[in-house]
Amino acid sequence: MLRVAYPATLPPELLRDFPEGVELIPVSEHLDQDLDIDVWIPDPYPTRAMRAWPHLHGVRLVLSLLAGTEWIPTVVGPHVTICNAHGAHNVATAEWTITAILAMLKYIPLYLDIQHSGVWKRRFEASAQYAQITGDARPLYPPVMLEDLSGKTVLLVGYGAIGKEIERMLEPFHVDLIRVARTARTTPTVHPVSELDALLPTADIVVLILPYTAESRWLIDAPQFALMRQGALLVNAARGPIVNTDALVNALRAGKIRAALDVTDPEPLPERHPLWSCPNLFLTPHIGASSPNFAPNALRTAADELRRYMNGEPLHNVVQAAI
Amino acid sequence: MLRVAYPATLPPELLRDFPEGVELIPVSEHLDQDLDIDVWIPDPYPTRAMRAWPHLHGVRLVLSLLAGTEWIPTVVGPHVTICNAHGAHNVATAEWTITAILAMLKYIPLYLDIQHSGVWKRRFEASAQYAQITGDARPLYPPVMLEDLSGKTVLLVGYGAIGKEIERMLEPFHVDLIRVARTARTTPTVHPVSELDALLPTADIVVLILPYTAESRWLIDAPQFALMRQGALLVNAARGPIVNTDALVNALRAGKIRAALDVTDPEPLPERHPLWSCPNLFLTPHIGASSPNFAPNALRTAADELRRYMNGEPLHNVVQAAI
Repeated sequence: MLRVAYPATLPPELLRDFPEGVELIPVSEHLDQDLDIDVWIPDPYPTRAMRAWPHLHGVRLVLSLLAGTEWIPTVVGPHVTICNAHGAHNVATAEWTITAILAMLKYIPLYLDIQHSGVWKRRFEASAQYAQITGDARPLYPPVMLEDLSGKTVLLVGYGAIGKEIERMLEPFHVDLIRVARTARTTPTVHPVSELDALLPTADIVVLILPYTAESRWLIDAPQFALMRQGALLVNAARGPIVNTDALVNALRAGKIRAALDVTDPEPLPERHPLWSCPNLFLTPHIGASSPNFAPNALRTAADELRRYMNGEPLHNVVQAAI
Repeated sequence: MLRVAYPATLPPELLRDFPEGVELIPVSEHLDQDLDIDVWIPDPYPTRAMRAWPHLHGVRLVLSLLAGTEWIPTVVGPHVTICNAHGAHNVATAEWTITAILAMLKYIPLYLDIQHSGVWKRRFEASAQYAQITGDARPLYPPVMLEDLSGKTVLLVGYGAIGKEIERMLEPFHVDLIRVARTARTTPTVHPVSELDALLPTADIVVLILPYTAESRWLIDAPQFALMRQGALLVNAARGPIVNTDALVNALRAGKIRAALDVTDPEPLPERHPLWSCPNLFLTPHIGASSPNFAPNALRTAADELRRYMNGEPLHNVVQAAI
């Protein structure tokens, strides 16, 4: 019988699709005994998962419920195979990204502020905001009170499952899409990361949706902000440390760029951190992948991978093969 | 020489595409003389346009820069042909609609509030908001912090040029789309307005994008709110009086529905009006069609219509034919 540990907080009915021949063992974050386990489904909150780990013995396979697994290899070591929930969170994360882009281009934070003030005529402030952010000083008539996404140039940095989903959702807006990833490809054209600096000045919107690795740490730093267009929008739906936070704070305070972040570095963002009060910033507390479908999708992906593992078939979502 | 009056506030370079053989006459809202005019391009702000109208004589054709022309017939009477800027504002208005839908499903107002408070852990309030709005009391794991648009049922009330553009932008989200318009059609199926009440209980999201007429006044009133699903989202990108404002305020205060409005009744919304402080509401001050492309698009549409008028060709965007 294969012993599969899962977070005790997970309602057991979500595990109904798991294969026969599996012993399902709920694991709380406050384990008071050691357990022999074959397969570990860690709690999606890393701090809770890490508290359980020292009590688990014999783990050969980790099935993460998340797309990003960057904390797992250092905790479990190289002798364990790690799979992510590839595909399970594409839709929610891509939808957050489209929402963040549109919310910034339509000045939703400003309009909510106007709504709270209860004064209709403050709408004209949006026109001043447009001129200030974009640096567009032409006499515009009527005053411009929001921007179109249609026709903009979007630089998509990362072209995995979620990146492709973002591309799909951008399609009706006829944006000019430029793709960048670790591995250059053709059909469609994907530029290598080495060309990022050359491409940054061409983009109105830069979307980060690549894995966090040693190579992608601080991929966006002060020189990259300097290369970006006046008023360009940086969207980080990936991981916080892909951006140098100090450089980001400087670029925002200087009015050079605007940003929408679902992830930060550090995370959680401490109270009184300068990011909280930066101008032209929209920030959500790492909720992009959250959705009523989160757990059902992630557990269906894990159950499928477990079935392949038990049948000796090749796994689909390996992010680390055991050595 | 055809005499064409245009708003004096309009930068003349935007009229470069107008046909030869036209005398372009700038008209300010404070005219101190009467003018003989053949064609009138009214100021997009009706109050300004109405101040100019009594001084204009001989007008046979009105070319509106807007999609909605509901104030014009009563002002100019039945002996004048009126054309709207059909197509010019589709993209901006449809983008506002998609933005409004996504902003509400992703609880952007709540997250901006959390951002302003500067406390990361308040993210869990979103889960409480989800349960409260949707009435979904199942134990959800992890807590649900936003909703997917994908898979929702959208009732599109109005299926003109902007309605079709909204449908096009909804395509990647694989929503279940139900169309309603004044005229029932097939391929695709468009239900007649008479079936609206029967369809309302099936929708997660109701989008109003139909013309304001005597028939569409208060189309959404207390009985319609009662028919809507718990937590359904009403989006009004059309005209304020299509919704009974008192009934809307009641439905919002009762926690029955949520709403996103670019238009209100009355408009502008006066200070201290109850709508300003209704819960689960996002409100913008009639800026949905605003965009850097507003004037160039609208004037290109007007120039094309004027060319057809001068050549004796059928006009494309007639909303009232002169009798």
